[in-house]
Amino acid sequence: MSDDSQYKEAGVNIDAGNDAVQKIKAALRSTFTPDVLSDVGSFGGMFDATRLKGMQAPVLVASTDGVGTKTKVAAKLNRWDTVGADLVNHCINDILVQGARPLFFLDYVASAKLQPEIIAAVVGGMTAACRAAGIALLGGETAEMPGVYEPGEIDIAGTIIGAVERGKVITGKHITLGDVLLALPSSGLHTNGYSLARKVLAEMDWSTPNETLGGSIGEVLLATHRSYLTEIEKLWTAEIAMHGLAHITGGGVVENLPRILKTGLGAQIKRGTWVEPPIFDLIQKSGNVRDAEMFRVFNMGIGMVIVVPAEQADKALEICPEAKRVGEIIAGAGVELV
Amino acid sequence: MSDDSQYKEAGVNIDAGNDAVQKIKAALRSTFTPDVLSDVGSFGGMFDATRLKGMQAPVLVASTDGVGTKTKVAAKLNRWDTVGADLVNHCINDILVQGARPLFFLDYVASAKLQPEIIAAVVGGMTAACRAAGIALLGGETAEMPGVYEPGEIDIAGTIIGAVERGKVITGKHITLGDVLLALPSSGLHTNGYSLARKVLAEMDWSTPNETLGGSIGEVLLATHRSYLTEIEKLWTAEIAMHGLAHITGGGVVENLPRILKTGLGAQIKRGTWVEPPIFDLIQKSGNVRDAEMFRVFNMGIGMVIVVPAEQADKALEICPEAKRVGEIIAGAGVELV
Repeated sequence: MSDDSQYKEAGVNIDAGNDAVQKIKAALRSTFTPDVLSDVGSFGGMFDATRLKGMQAPVLVASTDGVGTKTKVAAKLNRWDTVGADLVNHCINDILVQGARPLFFLDYVASAKLQPEIIAAVVGGMTAACRAAGIALLGGETAEMPGVYEPGEIDIAGTIIGAVERGKVITGKHITLGDVLLALPSSGLHTNGYSLARKVLAEMDWSTPNETLGGSIGEVLLATHRSYLTEIEKLWTAEIAMHGLAHITGGGVVENLPRILKTGLGAQIKRGTWVEPPIFDLIQKSGNVRDAEMFRVFNMGIGMVIVVPAEQADKALEICPEAKRVGEIIAGAGVELV
Repeated sequence: MSDDSQYKEAGVNIDAGNDAVQKIKAALRSTFTPDVLSDVGSFGGMFDATRLKGMQAPVLVASTDGVGTKTKVAAKLNRWDTVGADLVNHCINDILVQGARPLFFLDYVASAKLQPEIIAAVVGGMTAACRAAGIALLGGETAEMPGVYEPGEIDIAGTIIGAVERGKVITGKHITLGDVLLALPSSGLHTNGYSLARKVLAEMDWSTPNETLGGSIGEVLLATHRSYLTEIEKLWTAEIAMHGLAHITGGGVVENLPRILKTGLGAQIKRGTWVEPPIFDLIQKSGNVRDAEMFRVFNMGIGMVIVVPAEQADKALEICPEAKRVGEIIAGAGVELV
């Protein structure tokens, strides 16, 4: 059939009896929290929002994102589960920084020609990440678009919906001079900088284990984008006053951190206070990339910055032993790396 | 900069001073209802959900969709606003059939190389459709993915979130023998069947006005997917008991209508009771396509099927003079075309 929407996770536009499709349906159902009122196969996914009635002033927070050309690394290694998890975790972190807890997720997967095994692997990665976060993969769409995508390539995008009390939205407006910057480690490139990384590493051996890197180049590049939900939940439980949270994505720490700083405030970050994973050094040397560009394209080992009052920094570090004290809020603008 | 996320509607990952970007920001803001709490430029879009507290048992309904290879028609005609509107309207209809009113929308636009003017046109179409429906374009993502997309091609996907009272969800479970099928006219192919349509019409002249079609082939193929929000709202206001609603997308009426029918119930639809737009006849003759396939790939002029109790059919037709009585619910299974 020459249609452009050959398989809908809604479940009808594909011939039955396909193993991959059965696997996908089972994986989707495995994420269904008690709030999910629809089965795989509905027009739209339905989510019981009664819990919002128990909130004083519920705010829905929504974000759509992709994983960029990390899909090309997945294609090169023919390993498709991790990009699915990347997408979910990226989206979780994107709304977490505003104080929102995730409720549910929807996905979009498109390719020139759908390969059910690849879709099943991508969805498998997404559903595993959804289960880990306790959120539902409520729906999605898979599209076959011959002539739009390059043969063998795939794109994935996702949308997350979360909720937060209006009075608890984190905006950065409480950030003040002397606040401390804590950094949660990234697991690698996360989902940014792959066009540059792939270019400068193109001629190297991607499959031989490398002791310095802690795996082959391919494995290290494909490392899953971490979710920081568990860590932030712990800090909430301990009533740490998080004045600001910045998810370090495209633009790096130098572009993402200033997004939450008021006029007149800057951030000073001291290199050497956290571990810069060796993959970044390899990329920098292979491509002869300047420091400034490295910090604009890559997270450089910092996945999330948490801004806390100076007097709460030690307590926060006790609760999150992984976090490092990397700098502080100063008078000025932007990020100063020292 | 070799990053994969060059422009975020969130607003930071692009050099300032670009006319297209300013246009996009203004267009996005023009959709911001009083419920929108975030500006263009936040990590995630924020939507005041206080209205859900006023509901007895609020259910959020969410759907993600694309427009398939209709983007290739847009590329051929170099006209990009209509696919943006298509996407929004398609999503609105997808949740409307479950009884949900739309609240907000998020988009994803990706291409091998971003052309700001094209993005501005696509977003312009989306924002116009959002304004018409009274919903906010709350956020989105635009990605540049060299090597993933064919040069000059673009893909767009969107996610809509709506709400409905749990007791008012339309599932089709109230549909009974003898219920009447009303059809709301489509404006053309909507967003389905473009791979087949483009193939069979490829060699024809797409730009000369054609009296039978009511426009050139290109114009007719690009006709905007209609939203049925206004019509369905009217029927709600008049307290018509809509037992079932089916949005006719990929799979046509023969696959979409049975999705809401209980076991033991089928639908009989009489051809000739509604207008089949001449573009379908042209496609069928040009491609020598069988009737059965036409009705599985295309909507054939029916954009939405409304199932109402027989005694309310006349009243519904009075309220929606555009609608046609096209058939009824019979014992059996599937759709019987007579």
